[in-house]
Amino acid sequence: MGALSYHNLDRTDSFRKLKALRPRPRLRDLLEPERVRSCSIPAGGGLVYNYAAKSVNGDIVGLLQELAFEQELVDKYRALVNGAVMNTGEQRMVLHHLCRGQLGREILAGGKDLRRFYVEQQERISAFAEKVHAGEVRGSTGKPFMYVVQVGIGGSDLGPRALYLALERFAREEHDGPRMEARFISNVDPDEPNDVLNRLDLEATLFVLVSKSGTTQETLTNAAFVREKMADSGAGGLDPGKHMVAVTGEDSPLAREEGFLDVFFIDNFIGGRYSSSSAVGGTLLTLSFGRGVFENFLEGAHEADRLGLEPDLTRNAALMDALIGIYERNVLGYPVTAVLPYSQALNRFPAHLQQLDMESNGKRVNRFGEPVSYATGPVVYGEPGTNGQHSFYQLLHQGTDTIPLQFIGFKRPQHRFDVEFSGSSSQMKLNANLAAQIVAFAKGKADENPNRHFPGERPSSLIRGERLTPKSLGALLAHFENKVMFQGFAWNINSFDQEGVQLGKSLTRQALEARDMDPALRKYAELLGVR
Amino acid sequence: MGALSYHNLDRTDSFRKLKALRPRPRLRDLLEPERVRSCSIPAGGGLVYNYAAKSVNGDIVGLLQELAFEQELVDKYRALVNGAVMNTGEQRMVLHHLCRGQLGREILAGGKDLRRFYVEQQERISAFAEKVHAGEVRGSTGKPFMYVVQVGIGGSDLGPRALYLALERFAREEHDGPRMEARFISNVDPDEPNDVLNRLDLEATLFVLVSKSGTTQETLTNAAFVREKMADSGAGGLDPGKHMVAVTGEDSPLAREEGFLDVFFIDNFIGGRYSSSSAVGGTLLTLSFGRGVFENFLEGAHEADRLGLEPDLTRNAALMDALIGIYERNVLGYPVTAVLPYSQALNRFPAHLQQLDMESNGKRVNRFGEPVSYATGPVVYGEPGTNGQHSFYQLLHQGTDTIPLQFIGFKRPQHRFDVEFSGSSSQMKLNANLAAQIVAFAKGKADENPNRHFPGERPSSLIRGERLTPKSLGALLAHFENKVMFQGFAWNINSFDQEGVQLGKSLTRQALEARDMDPALRKYAELLGVR
Repeated sequence: MGALSYHNLDRTDSFRKLKALRPRPRLRDLLEPERVRSCSIPAGGGLVYNYAAKSVNGDIVGLLQELAFEQELVDKYRALVNGAVMNTGEQRMVLHHLCRGQLGREILAGGKDLRRFYVEQQERISAFAEKVHAGEVRGSTGKPFMYVVQVGIGGSDLGPRALYLALERFAREEHDGPRMEARFISNVDPDEPNDVLNRLDLEATLFVLVSKSGTTQETLTNAAFVREKMADSGAGGLDPGKHMVAVTGEDSPLAREEGFLDVFFIDNFIGGRYSSSSAVGGTLLTLSFGRGVFENFLEGAHEADRLGLEPDLTRNAALMDALIGIYERNVLGYPVTAVLPYSQALNRFPAHLQQLDMESNGKRVNRFGEPVSYATGPVVYGEPGTNGQHSFYQLLHQGTDTIPLQFIGFKRPQHRFDVEFSGSSSQMKLNANLAAQIVAFAKGKADENPNRHFPGERPSSLIRGERLTPKSLGALLAHFENKVMFQGFAWNINSFDQEGVQLGKSLTRQALEARDMDPALRKYAELLGVR
Repeated sequence: MGALSYHNLDRTDSFRKLKALRPRPRLRDLLEPERVRSCSIPAGGGLVYNYAAKSVNGDIVGLLQELAFEQELVDKYRALVNGAVMNTGEQRMVLHHLCRGQLGREILAGGKDLRRFYVEQQERISAFAEKVHAGEVRGSTGKPFMYVVQVGIGGSDLGPRALYLALERFAREEHDGPRMEARFISNVDPDEPNDVLNRLDLEATLFVLVSKSGTTQETLTNAAFVREKMADSGAGGLDPGKHMVAVTGEDSPLAREEGFLDVFFIDNFIGGRYSSSSAVGGTLLTLSFGRGVFENFLEGAHEADRLGLEPDLTRNAALMDALIGIYERNVLGYPVTAVLPYSQALNRFPAHLQQLDMESNGKRVNRFGEPVSYATGPVVYGEPGTNGQHSFYQLLHQGTDTIPLQFIGFKRPQHRFDVEFSGSSSQMKLNANLAAQIVAFAKGKADENPNRHFPGERPSSLIRGERLTPKSLGALLAHFENKVMFQGFAWNINSFDQEGVQLGKSLTRQALEARDMDPALRKYAELLGVR
């Protein structure tokens, strides 16, 4: 393999051919049972990605494969796992895959083997969690810890929260409940920490303070909030230092601070939104569920990561998902994607994907800093089915825009108890609804009453599994991370920085310090009672 | 006032003029402090709608006023509250405003005064709730009720849930906590009822079963689930009939069923997504917070409803909000709107607005059943700030599409306790962030580093209030309901039916009964373990 080359999407032949291709296939003609069987790609952890209900035929898939080669998507992924500086804006390697396993060559930084570093941190976390679970580490009044509260925002919140919620029921069914129940404090709105802290037995609560830089305004403020509440509570108060660990970078101010039971480390090669499989997610999930559950989760993610290295599009689920997304965004012109898990346990998973996708690929310049002349990352949103059916599906079926859909479903629920009602179990009803929606969106239905006419031709994919377990959850997470990465490569953008958050930060500082203020900002700050 | 006339948006002169208007104003030129002061409209309940950071100048506002007159928006609203059959698809009146107060003439149906009917139901609910709170009505083992679980989906879930969460902290601060803590069961996924029920003391739990038609598959299934769990629990089990009330239509099968402590009624003139101020929301909210809180909520909504009758656009917040939305959707071509409350208590409010807006206006035919040739309802999504700043704001600032934003903020938090950290309180930081984002989105920032260049010109509005209280929450809800209604009138569509949910239902039945099945549906059902 020679050096990689980087071109904008619209400079590739395959993209031009895709745009010109006529006639475009109709979903109602495509969607035959044989296709439902054959358009399936293993996605790791027992998951299967199915694209039968996407508006792509053999010609289009062929051109998408050409596009994958032209943009060297898999080669770039291979380079990434081998330590190429893929975060070009910040001049950093991108190593979240390495938290899950060694996919490429050994990666050294400052003489340190980074795979070993990530494993070591996870070992330290597991050892600490075991002491907490055994009651060897206790709160300042001697009570064993029963609750763990993640204090973090963005990537330090959304991913770990979504994953915790995804596994909490599983743990209740399989392990008699989580070892420790988790709560989350993220927003700088004082109503959030007040509410969470008022409802907990603080004597039995361990806090995990997470900020890579050690400078995140919201998180430091909430840490101060927690400390003040601890000091205020009960007779003489609690010693916050006996109730808090930190997760941060080795060179951050937090790493040098006193007042933690322990500190676990991450580094600059793990972006916030990609940090669920690092100490950022690992600390919370290991404390909540124990070492084994988190290891299974990493294993599932690693399995998906390995599958992503397959050059053949029809055997690489993340790559196929990514390229169909490019086709929908840049050829068909669809601005939004909805993620619709038919599993209540995944109720906050769409909120995590929203960050993952929109923060990674919501960019208007390419990796060289030149404005691109095509659309990049779409808006991503979603809610669990069947709930969404009774909410926004009306627009999905009969609105004026087409929104591509990403369904997720499992044969079995996490709990074993189910009820038979009018001839079927709840789980069967859930999945009958899911199957029905895919077909309804694809094929529509003619009706003389125009109000009841369904145009169809609304494409969807399905990721399905046997059951939502730690392993399948790991694969699910990695699938989307890799999909987003491939799309970023195809668009020739840097998916690994987030400069778009900086301006708001600096204007906030101005408003708080009441200096150098834009006059309109001053007025808004006044109206909102700032100063 | 003569008879109303109904025309498509693109048949109006004002719309044509709006499309042709050049040059279009630039936000960075518009956004002066004086404008921040003057572009404010009272929205009821102490709220103020501010549109200073929207890309509209005097000329555009003038044309939007013309459009309001041409499409007779306020006249249509007046007709609606006077009992016109505005739900043309189902041939029904649209009367959710009447739950809040008498805005127009008396409305009779079958000789019944409907305002009186709604008030009577609310009186019955309040009387029942008082008995529950006093311990006069208890569970089947004699325990007082401490928990209330809403069993419903769509409009019977999202609105009541969002409102409950919005007021739970307020109740903790002002009233020593809710009278009864609420939980919600909506999804047919058995993991949801399992999880909710396993964590409750069922002896102390009252269920509110909500289905207007009395035939909602998910809700009836979950009722059966609850009953089976009750019967299974403890020695000899509990009597479900002593733990459940129903909210339904007078002619529904549920209304004739045994097995409820009481039944409260709604009717067909209140659509699901508009039913929060009827018995659907009233039962849960009155049980949770008591009569007074719910009355204040209705009062706030009624105040907003009255303001909606003002013909002058610059004094009618919901109308201005609606028409700026039309301008953004149909002149500027923006397909998505984000709702961004800077209040953690509103964390599920965007999910309710998503249903309200997308189910109402996600329509492709006009009220006469003719396909429209312009875009109607946008995708609506959102998460609370500051959380969103660390998630999807990257795309909002630097993505390739423009997404109009709807901010919501309050001067004071719901809780009184706050912490000073590096020179400011959490609430001040929250609102400094909010003010900063408005200006950052509008004005952007030039930078030599293209990665750090912010194009700006991203319009936003702000609804602000003193504090999120029952009254301001009522006004907030009504503001959006009325905004959506005005947009539906402007687009000449019927915002009050939802035929788009029917096809999925009938295909689900096919899959469950395994008959007349589309072959692709059969295959999907097989893959997902249905039968």
